[in-house]
Amino acid sequence: MSRVVADAPVGVALIGSGRMGSFHAETLARRVPGARLVAVADAAPGAAERLAGVLAADRAYTDVAQVWDDPSVDAVVIATPARTHADLVVAAAAAGRSVFCEKPMAVTLADADRAIDAARAADIVLQVGFNRRFAPDWVAARGLIDTGRLGTPRLLRSLTRDPGGFDPSRVPPDTIFLETLIHDFDTLRFLNPGAEAVEVVATADALVEPDWRDRGLLDTAVVVVRFDNGALGTAEACFEAAYGYDVRGEVLGSGGMAQMGDGRRTGMTYSDAAGRSVETVRGDQELFVDAYTAELTAFVDAVRTGTPAQVTGEDARSALTIALAAAESVRTGGPVRIDEVAK
Amino acid sequence: MSRVVADAPVGVALIGSGRMGSFHAETLARRVPGARLVAVADAAPGAAERLAGVLAADRAYTDVAQVWDDPSVDAVVIATPARTHADLVVAAAAAGRSVFCEKPMAVTLADADRAIDAARAADIVLQVGFNRRFAPDWVAARGLIDTGRLGTPRLLRSLTRDPGGFDPSRVPPDTIFLETLIHDFDTLRFLNPGAEAVEVVATADALVEPDWRDRGLLDTAVVVVRFDNGALGTAEACFEAAYGYDVRGEVLGSGGMAQMGDGRRTGMTYSDAAGRSVETVRGDQELFVDAYTAELTAFVDAVRTGTPAQVTGEDARSALTIALAAAESVRTGGPVRIDEVAK
Amino acid sequence: MSRVVADAPVGVALIGSGRMGSFHAETLARRVPGARLVAVADAAPGAAERLAGVLAADRAYTDVAQVWDDPSVDAVVIATPARTHADLVVAAAAAGRSVFCEKPMAVTLADADRAIDAARAADIVLQVGFNRRFAPDWVAARGLIDTGRLGTPRLLRSLTRDPGGFDPSRVPPDTIFLETLIHDFDTLRFLNPGAEAVEVVATADALVEPDWRDRGLLDTAVVVVRFDNGALGTAEACFEAAYGYDVRGEVLGSGGMAQMGDGRRTGMTYSDAAGRSVETVRGDQELFVDAYTAELTAFVDAVRTGTPAQVTGEDARSALTIALAAAESVRTGGPVRIDEVAK
Amino acid sequence: MSRVVADAPVGVALIGSGRMGSFHAETLARRVPGARLVAVADAAPGAAERLAGVLAADRAYTDVAQVWDDPSVDAVVIATPARTHADLVVAAAAAGRSVFCEKPMAVTLADADRAIDAARAADIVLQVGFNRRFAPDWVAARGLIDTGRLGTPRLLRSLTRDPGGFDPSRVPPDTIFLETLIHDFDTLRFLNPGAEAVEVVATADALVEPDWRDRGLLDTAVVVVRFDNGALGTAEACFEAAYGYDVRGEVLGSGGMAQMGDGRRTGMTYSDAAGRSVETVRGDQELFVDAYTAELTAFVDAVRTGTPAQVTGEDARSALTIALAAAESVRTGGPVRIDEVAK
Repeated sequence: MSRVVADAPVGVALIGSGRMGSFHAETLARRVPGARLVAVADAAPGAAERLAGVLAADRAYTDVAQVWDDPSVDAVVIATPARTHADLVVAAAAAGRSVFCEKPMAVTLADADRAIDAARAADIVLQVGFNRRFAPDWVAARGLIDTGRLGTPRLLRSLTRDPGGFDPSRVPPDTIFLETLIHDFDTLRFLNPGAEAVEVVATADALVEPDWRDRGLLDTAVVVVRFDNGALGTAEACFEAAYGYDVRGEVLGSGGMAQMGDGRRTGMTYSDAAGRSVETVRGDQELFVDAYTAELTAFVDAVRTGTPAQVTGEDARSALTIALAAAESVRTGGPVRIDEVAK
Repeated sequence: MSRVVADAPVGVALIGSGRMGSFHAETLARRVPGARLVAVADAAPGAAERLAGVLAADRAYTDVAQVWDDPSVDAVVIATPARTHADLVVAAAAAGRSVFCEKPMAVTLADADRAIDAARAADIVLQVGFNRRFAPDWVAARGLIDTGRLGTPRLLRSLTRDPGGFDPSRVPPDTIFLETLIHDFDTLRFLNPGAEAVEVVATADALVEPDWRDRGLLDTAVVVVRFDNGALGTAEACFEAAYGYDVRGEVLGSGGMAQMGDGRRTGMTYSDAAGRSVETVRGDQELFVDAYTAELTAFVDAVRTGTPAQVTGEDARSALTIALAAAESVRTGGPVRIDEVAK
Repeated sequence: MSRVVADAPVGVALIGSGRMGSFHAETLARRVPGARLVAVADAAPGAAERLAGVLAADRAYTDVAQVWDDPSVDAVVIATPARTHADLVVAAAAAGRSVFCEKPMAVTLADADRAIDAARAADIVLQVGFNRRFAPDWVAARGLIDTGRLGTPRLLRSLTRDPGGFDPSRVPPDTIFLETLIHDFDTLRFLNPGAEAVEVVATADALVEPDWRDRGLLDTAVVVVRFDNGALGTAEACFEAAYGYDVRGEVLGSGGMAQMGDGRRTGMTYSDAAGRSVETVRGDQELFVDAYTAELTAFVDAVRTGTPAQVTGEDARSALTIALAAAESVRTGGPVRIDEVAK
Repeated sequence: MSRVVADAPVGVALIGSGRMGSFHAETLARRVPGARLVAVADAAPGAAERLAGVLAADRAYTDVAQVWDDPSVDAVVIATPARTHADLVVAAAAAGRSVFCEKPMAVTLADADRAIDAARAADIVLQVGFNRRFAPDWVAARGLIDTGRLGTPRLLRSLTRDPGGFDPSRVPPDTIFLETLIHDFDTLRFLNPGAEAVEVVATADALVEPDWRDRGLLDTAVVVVRFDNGALGTAEACFEAAYGYDVRGEVLGSGGMAQMGDGRRTGMTYSDAAGRSVETVRGDQELFVDAYTAELTAFVDAVRTGTPAQVTGEDARSALTIALAAAESVRTGGPVRIDEVAK
C-alpha cells in the first residue's frame, strides 16, 4: 500500500532529560501522531543514553552541538534549565531547526528578543510550553470567549499551587514569578484575548518556609494585573498545597463566568462516615497529560505543515514582562507599569 | 369547607409526641406563620406535658378524646404509630378537625378508604406527610415537568437510605414498604403526574441484619413500578448507609433529566491529603427541615383559606397500593398487578 | 450587662424599613424564637405603618425618638442608610437599648469609636450585621480552622458579586469598599482568627458602567490584604454578575483548604442538549435567609442572656479600617499601611 | 502460553472496520505502546483499504481467511456484528492468534462455550471488550472494594443511556440486553467480585419509539439482579438521552458508597442568567477514549508477556447468562433463575 510523503514523521530531538524533558520525550515517543523521537541530548553523563534506551530513540548525545549536526532532527524540544533557553533557541534557529521551548523562553527581555529575532530570521516554528492553552477546561473557556458568550472580561483569576516538598535552598530569587506564575500570566492573557497588561502590583512572602525569608525566598504570591481593556486579573501561587497540585482559572465577563480546573483525579466519589470525597490531582504530569500531548501534537503539526505556532515567542515575552514587573513590584513595594519594564 | 377567622392563628394540636411528632410540634411553634401549637396529646405519662412545656403549648393531654373537646383546636397533626392513623383521622373528621397525618395514612386499603370517606364527609382538610413534595430539589424538578422541559417521563428513580442503627427486633414485617418506600412510591407518582402504577415487582432481603432474615426482616429492597404511561420507576431502600441519610430522585424524560438529592450538609468543601470532601446529611430532620416547615405551612394555609390539601388521602391510598403490591410481590416472587391489590 | 426577664420575648423595634430592614423585620416576626417585633420606625410617611401592618407589629413611628420612649422596646435593629448608623447606635446606647446594627456600623473611625464607646458605657449588646459569620459554609470552615485541621492560613479569598441592575448615579464614592467589600474584609478576618491586617493594596475601576468612571464610580475592585501572621488575603467585588448573586470564600492553610459558597439555588440538576445545569442564587436574601435568621437569633439570645455579641463593634472597626485603607490605596496608587489609616 | 519476541511490537489485525472497529484500529495505531496495526479485514468492498490507508496499516483484506495466512499477525481485534463473534474466535484460536473480541463475545451459551473451549485448547489470549473495567472511575471504585473500604456490596447500580438517533428498524430483538446491558451486567459482576447472579427480573418497553413496540422493540429496560452474596443490582438502559451519552455506576456497601460516571465533558463550568452548567459527554468514544486505550494496551501486554487476559471468556459467558435471563424474564413476565438459563 502506497504512502504519501506527508506521512513521514517529524524527527524530534529532546534537549535536557530531566523530569519535564523525560515526560516530553515519552509523550513524543508514544502519544504524538506523526512525531518520531530520534535523539536525546543531555550533558550529564549517561542521562541521555538511559532515556534514549527506554524510549527507543536512535541516538544519545552529551553535546548539544551534535544535535545540530544530526540530519534526522527536524525539530527540538528544549527542556533544560530556564537560563539556558534563549541561547538554545538561537542556536536551533541558526541550525534551521524548529523549536518547542519549555517556559520561560527567556528570563530577560533582551534574551527574549534575541530568541524571537533569531526564530523569525530563520523562519522556524517557535512554540513555547504554556500547557494550559491546550488543557480541555481552558480550551473550552476560550471557546466561550471567542463566541462572545462570556462578553467582555472584567475579572480574571489564575492560580497555581504545587504539592510541596521543594528544597528552599534550590529556589532562585524570582522563581515564583519567572517559572511558576509565568503560566498564570500567560493564562490571564489567553483568557483576555487582544488585551495587554498595563500595570502590575505584587504581594509575596515566604509562608511555607518562613526561615528562608531573609535569604530572599518567595513561596507565596498574589499579583494583580490591570489590562488595557480595563479587566483586572489576579494571579496567585503557593509552593505547597496539602491536597495536591491545584491549577484553576476563572473569568467573569459581562455575559457570564467560566471556571476552570476541577482538580479531581477521577469522577469517582466515595462516601463514608467522614462524608463524600473525591481524590485530587497530585502533580502536573497527571493533570496535564492530555495538554502536554496536545501541545506537542500542535507543535509537530505546525512543523509538518509550516503553519505558525499557537503559542509564540511574543506570547512568552509578554508573560515575561508581567513576571518582571511583579518581581519589581515586590522590590519597590508598589505598582509597576509594564511600559517601565518593557522599554 | 369551613374557614377559621382569617386573622386568628390556626390552633393546632399534636397527637403523638415521639421523635417525628416532637419535631412537627417545634416546627409549628417556631417556624410556621399563622399556626399556634395549642395542645399536645400523648398517652405515655408525662410525655405530652414535657413537650408542651418546652414549646409553651397551652395544654397537655393523655387522652386524645380531650383534644376533640378542646375548642381552641382547629386542626391536628397525627404522629402516632402507623397502625393508629386511620382511626385517628376518622375521629378527627367526626370532631370536625382538619388533619395533617404522617405517612402512611393507613396500612390497609379499607382503612385508607375509611379515612378518605370520613374526611370528605366532614369537609375537613386532610393532608398526608409526604415531605419530599415540599423539598426544594423535588419542587424544582416538578416545575421542570410542569413546564414541559423534561418531556414525557420514561425512567424514574427514588431512593431512601437511612443512617442505620435500627433495632431489628422492632421492625414489623413490610415496614420497608409501608413506612420507608411509601415515600418513594409517592415520589415516583409526584414526578410522573397524571400517571398511575399498573404493575410492581419487588426484590428484597435482610442484608444489613442477615441473622433476622428468617424472622421476616427486610432491610434492603428494590422495587420496579410500571406506570400506565409506560414509564418505569425504580424505588430503592436500605436501612443502613455508612455515610448518613440519603434521599435521591431522578427523572429521565424525553426532553432531559432531573436529579434531586445532593446529600451535602453545607456547600463547604475541605481538601487535604485525603482528597476533597463535603460533609453529608445525617438525618431526615436535618435534610428536610425546610420541607417539614413548608408542608406544615401549606397545611395551615389550607386550613385557614379552606383550600384543598396539596397531598391528599387519595395520594396516600395510591402510594399504599404500590406498597402492598410490593410486599405481595416479595411473597409471591413475581410481578403483581395493581388492580389485583386495589380491588 | 442587664438582662430582660428570661421567659418574656425580647421586644425589638426596627429602625429603617427599606429592603434590608423589611427583611430583618420579617425574620424577627416569623423566624426568630424569643423575639417579638414590637415597633417599626421610618421617617418616610406611611412606610413604618405599612410594614407594621403586614407583620402585626404593635406600633409604627415616624420619629426615632418615639422608639426610645417605648417601654416595650428592649432592643433595636438599625437598617437605615450607612451614614446614620453611628449616631443611632449612640442614641440607642443612651436609651439603654441593645443594638443590632447593619454593616457598616460607621463610615469613619471617629464614628466607629463613638459607637463602641457609647455601647460599652451603657453596657448594651452591640452586634454588627456581618451575615457570613452565620452562614453554614462559613461556620463550617471556621470550625475547621478552630479545630486545627486547616493549619495556619496562608492564602485567603473572599468575594462578592451582585446581580447588577444598580443605578450608578446613586452609588456614593467608596461604596464598593464601605458597603460591599466590608463584608469580605470581615470575612478575611473571621477566617484568619487572631490576625490583623497590616497593609492593603487595592485596584479598582468602573467596568460595568465605564461612562461613570470620571465621576468617581468604582464598580469592580480587587484588594490584597497582608495580615500580621503573614497570610495574604484577596477581596474582590463586582456590582454585576450575569448569573446572579455570588459570594464565595477560600482558605488555603498549611493543613488543607476550605472553600465556601456553592452558589446553587437547590441541589436539583437539569440535563438536556445544552449540558447539565443548576440554578444559581439570585439575591442576598435568598442566599443568606438562614444566616439572617441565625444572626438575629444570636443577637436576641445575647440580649436575653446578657452574653456578649458574636460580632462586635471592634470587629466593625477593624473591617472599616481595611476599607478606608483600600479606598486610600486607590487614590494614592500604592499600598497603604493599616497603621497609617487607623491612627 | 506462547510469547511473541519481547522487543518486537505485537502485530494486530482488525476484523470489521465499522464504527467501533475503526476506533479500535486508530487506538492500536496511535495510542497503544508495543502494538502495530498490520492489517485490516472487512468483507465490504473498499472498506478495509480505506481504513488501512488512513492508519498506515500494511495490508487490507476482504476475506478473513487472509488474516490467518498473514504471518505478521500475532493477534486480532474482532469488531464485526455480534452474531459472527464466536465463529471468529474459534477460527482465530484454530489459527493460533490471540483475540480481543468486542462484546458480546457470543449470543448463545453454546457459542460462548465453543469460543471459550477453542481459546483454552489453543492457549491463546482471549479478552472481551468490557471497557468499563478499564475506565478510571470504575477502576478506582474497584480499588475501594479490593481494599475493603466499601465493605460488602449490598446495592449496586449500573446504567447505560445512549444519545439516541437509532433506527428502530435495525434493532434486533433482545439488543438492549445482549448488546447494551451486557456492559452493565458485567459491571455489576466487576463491582461485586466473587459473587455470581442467581436470579433476574426484567421490566422493559418501547418508550422512545412506541410505534415499534408491537414489532418487539425494547428501547428502555430495568433489570434487577440478585447475587449469591445477597447483593441486589439494578441495571438500567435507555436508547435515548437528550443530554448525551450517560454511563454511571454505584455501589452501596456495608462500609460506604462509591459512585462512578460524572458525565462531564470537561471540568469547565459556565454560569450565566440560565444558571451554572457543564457540557456533557456525547458519545462512548469521547467518554471511554482512555478506557479503550487501556483495554487494548492490557490486551497487547497480555499477548506479549503471555499472561492471562483481565476480562475472560468466562466473564463474557456470565454476563451473557444474565442477559439471556433478562430477555426470558420479559417474555415470561416473572423472575428467571440463572440456573434455569445456564444449564
